[in-house]
Amino acid sequence: MSQIFEAPGTRAAIEEGTILMPRFGADGLVACIAVDARDGTVLMLAHMNAEALARTLETGEAWYWSRSRGELWHKGATSGQIQRVVEMRVDCDQDALLIRVEVGGDGGCCHTGRRSCFYRGVTRDPASGAAVLQPVGSDR
Amino acid sequence: MSQIFEAPGTRAAIEEGTILMPRFGADGLVACIAVDARDGTVLMLAHMNAEALARTLETGEAWYWSRSRGELWHKGATSGQIQRVVEMRVDCDQDALLIRVEVGGDGGCCHTGRRSCFYRGVTRDPASGAAVLQPVGSDR
Repeated sequence: MSQIFEAPGTRAAIEEGTILMPRFGADGLVACIAVDARDGTVLMLAHMNAEALARTLETGEAWYWSRSRGELWHKGATSGQIQRVVEMRVDCDQDALLIRVEVGGDGGCCHTGRRSCFYRGVTRDPASGAAVLQPVGSDR
Repeated sequence: MSQIFEAPGTRAAIEEGTILMPRFGADGLVACIAVDARDGTVLMLAHMNAEALARTLETGEAWYWSRSRGELWHKGATSGQIQRVVEMRVDCDQDALLIRVEVGGDGGCCHTGRRSCFYRGVTRDPASGAAVLQPVGSDR
């Protein structure tokens, strides 16, 4: 499916060009950050292969490649948490995407039931040097 | 270096535990989203190996692993665009990090000179089906 997009060209074409030429990794995936269009909350980080990216562009709803399940994943198809893509951006070297989404269903995205997947803060315990986690204020 | 962090445990420990156990990929990396602490603008997506993550936690400044250069990368060491980490979060399955940063120097992050690496929007031309790029409003 990757031939449905332009192959990566020169550095100038990648960084300053007007054609999407996604730089899929060796695993055929690009990372995609999803943020809530309402308030900019970072909801999740997932991955798209060429087919998921093509379907996202065609349908206006987020499709990903589930690395854990090894299959295409129409986000929200079962949960109702459909992500309607308001805007897509690509980064300088075209190996990462950013989508602003309106979320259906209960407005969340995380399979644990939280609104965002980033529900824990990381700090370093100064005494032990251990990296510990604590819940951050629920935004739901 | 990955032994400086806990090895991934049970699903419950990963999703609901209080110990960071980063799930580094086969390439030894986790993705890290950097957002500007001032206004939430998504600045960049980069990667950390265990040593970069440890240095970030120890120093309070963002360290990455440069995949293109194959070396540890103290962001801003040459450009002045140091990223002081105000908050770090980890996602549900502990394979992605999110940092809110205060940016030094000119306040930007992208090697092309823009504030954010996500300076182009992606749309699908309805006639040809091609995915085309256009600049999005500069926020600098």
